[in-house]
Amino acid sequence: MAAPIEFYFDFSSPYGYVASVKIDAIAAKHGREVLWRPYLLGVPFKKAGIQPLVNVPMKAEYSLRDFARNARFHGVEYKHPTRFPTGTTAAVRAFYWIESTDAARAKAFAQALFRVYFIDDRDISDPETSVAVSATLGFAADTVRAALADDAVKNRTREIVDAAVAKGAFGSPFFFVDGEPFWGSDRLDQIERWIATGGW
Amino acid sequence: MAAPIEFYFDFSSPYGYVASVKIDAIAAKHGREVLWRPYLLGVPFKKAGIQPLVNVPMKAEYSLRDFARNARFHGVEYKHPTRFPTGTTAAVRAFYWIESTDAARAKAFAQALFRVYFIDDRDISDPETSVAVSATLGFAADTVRAALADDAVKNRTREIVDAAVAKGAFGSPFFFVDGEPFWGSDRLDQIERWIATGGW
Repeated sequence: MAAPIEFYFDFSSPYGYVASVKIDAIAAKHGREVLWRPYLLGVPFKKAGIQPLVNVPMKAEYSLRDFARNARFHGVEYKHPTRFPTGTTAAVRAFYWIESTDAARAKAFAQALFRVYFIDDRDISDPETSVAVSATLGFAADTVRAALADDAVKNRTREIVDAAVAKGAFGSPFFFVDGEPFWGSDRLDQIERWIATGGW
Repeated sequence: MAAPIEFYFDFSSPYGYVASVKIDAIAAKHGREVLWRPYLLGVPFKKAGIQPLVNVPMKAEYSLRDFARNARFHGVEYKHPTRFPTGTTAAVRAFYWIESTDAARAKAFAQALFRVYFIDDRDISDPETSVAVSATLGFAADTVRAALADDAVKNRTREIVDAAVAKGAFGSPFFFVDGEPFWGSDRLDQIERWIATGGW
């Protein structure tokens, strides 16, 4: 059985959100699984001296237009969040805590988290948003709050983020397909061909 | 008659090169012309504080891989140039001087210039390369050398570059389709739909 497609993303990334709606179907068409890997884009950005698009003159205005236009092109509902970009540490910790007991519900959490940010415009930097989203998946609020404060959860999150950056991930979405890196939702067509053909 | 698609690019841009091989056919399929507009990416980069991809840690290694892989994906012959990125001022001036007498030959010059850089690995920062390429299109070497030193040619080049940046161009390729900006060779599919449908 081939290894899963590794899908790294930041919860506050519009292109990561669009990719999250698309990648499972692309992989499934070719009999592949996807390993969802939220991470914290601030870590590679700091390491490499990269600024968020909306902090860069000229790119900022273009990107705000492209975020919405690109989502519409792909048929993905999108409302630009009031708080953008935003911190996602609590959301990433919640994801990996849920994943440690139930990978399917972790993916459901990620999908729901993206929707509350990019459709409902809620503040995902607030840990209570992750608590509320987790509750819709059956996790008791106090249990989630305890997990978010748990050093083991924090350490596991940090290890995953650091390993992603060590492997070369610096954007969102960022994929590894059998070790081959692909950056951007605009590489989904190339990812599909890579999966289908083993490279070119 | 609809206005032409404006196609801005830097002669030392791998993604601009790939787009140059693709854009005419996409436009022609929908009865549109393309206005080729070489410009100098250093100008918006300086204005916006943008670094070339190969100067940014992490992005550099990925980009070198993606330049070649993306070209192969699109079926475009590509050899990464020894001198990269490089100055293209002479090439841009030669283009606009040729265009002032013959737009078709200006496009042929641009296509040939891309090939000598991305296939033959020649030094396009050297004005003599533009002189030699122009010679293959029937322009006498001394006439081209005189044009490259002509203040009117320099001024026209500067005006076109400055106008592009004032309109918001900061990358290569960068397109305007009926005023709508698109950045990147990975937006060719969106450009085609925009031309076909008038937007979405």
